[in-house]
Amino acid sequence: MGDVKVLGASLSLFCWRIEWALKHKGIDYEYIEQDLRNKSTLLLKSNPVHKKVPVLVHCGKPISESLVILEYIEEKWTHNPLLPEDPLEKAMVRFWAKYVDDKCVLDALVASRAKGSEQKKAVNSAQESLKLLEKLIEGKKFFGGETIGFLDLVVGSLPNWLRLLEEMEGIKLLDSKELPLLHEWAQRFTEIPIIKECMPKTEDLISYFRAQKNGK
Amino acid sequence: MGDVKVLGASLSLFCWRIEWALKHKGIDYEYIEQDLRNKSTLLLKSNPVHKKVPVLVHCGKPISESLVILEYIEEKWTHNPLLPEDPLEKAMVRFWAKYVDDKCVLDALVASRAKGSEQKKAVNSAQESLKLLEKLIEGKKFFGGETIGFLDLVVGSLPNWLRLLEEMEGIKLLDSKELPLLHEWAQRFTEIPIIKECMPKTEDLISYFRAQKNGK
Repeated sequence: MGDVKVLGASLSLFCWRIEWALKHKGIDYEYIEQDLRNKSTLLLKSNPVHKKVPVLVHCGKPISESLVILEYIEEKWTHNPLLPEDPLEKAMVRFWAKYVDDKCVLDALVASRAKGSEQKKAVNSAQESLKLLEKLIEGKKFFGGETIGFLDLVVGSLPNWLRLLEEMEGIKLLDSKELPLLHEWAQRFTEIPIIKECMPKTEDLISYFRAQKNGK
Repeated sequence: MGDVKVLGASLSLFCWRIEWALKHKGIDYEYIEQDLRNKSTLLLKSNPVHKKVPVLVHCGKPISESLVILEYIEEKWTHNPLLPEDPLEKAMVRFWAKYVDDKCVLDALVASRAKGSEQKKAVNSAQESLKLLEKLIEGKKFFGGETIGFLDLVVGSLPNWLRLLEEMEGIKLLDSKELPLLHEWAQRFTEIPIIKECMPKTEDLISYFRAQKNGK
């Protein structure tokens, strides 16, 4: 099926899911780490609109936007499906994937940036957003059912990234008392070998961002 | 294929595309206008997460988020396809659809709200975003090629809505000198009978929003 490249930044939560999807499908790929403070000609040429990672380059053709890339991977390599076949179930997965990227990520960012009296309110609001995912995983092993699916790869970007925000800002977002099922799911998910392989440790994320903050 | 309902607000740019898609597929549906200032139990029950229109209710099952609904319609009723078959081409359509909803709509809103010296900058920025669509339509009759496709329905929400912002705020966004091809495409698109049927006139949009602004 030709040459597959992933332009990513190992610390970007939107990149891990692309590698997980390719590994889930058993597709060999070349990973090319991008320096986001000094963008490469390859990145600028591959995603001239947003100049962002991730980009999947398949046989020389670049595709951007992580959810668009996941759909492409699913359509191009149809074995080990990530999406359900039924159009209604598929719509539900797409709805929640958008919810994670738009609502959960935004609310967590707002909470991490809020100061003083606003912070508690923002943290509560971020937790409320996550509670809908807690409800969604109730009674299930994975969001995809007995095995991981599209939505697991999307939600899967959250735990380590949320822990990073927690450590950096001294807040609690993915509280194991408030969100026990999501916590258990995150543990199950990160134990899967192909997931573990491409999931930076929270400690590494923290030291990277501390270094960046200090201009190193 | 069962009972189809659309919960919409005739003045919401994200709703028109759903009706266009259903008409394009020749699907009978019941349109149920929603009062967004006094949300119905049906809407709150159908989209408890975002409490927004549009919602497609198919055989009692609700689906939200306009792009997710369009994908559902395309998969459920496969005749008169809106998306290309090729995964790469499909990815390009999805990329640009997201670009329209995230970037073009946001930039236009920012431009319409900017005041004083910020306004010119924001208007320029919104026009720059639209210029990428101008480039995309170059040499084509429709974004979908010889006939309308998914992306036409998505971009199709813009012209009348942009004209509304222009009238309300005294700015120029969809400038026919700056964006001649997009202008011509908008004319061709709105001449299509099924599109015309579900496209509120700019005058109606303006009087509605003026009335709303005045609290009527």
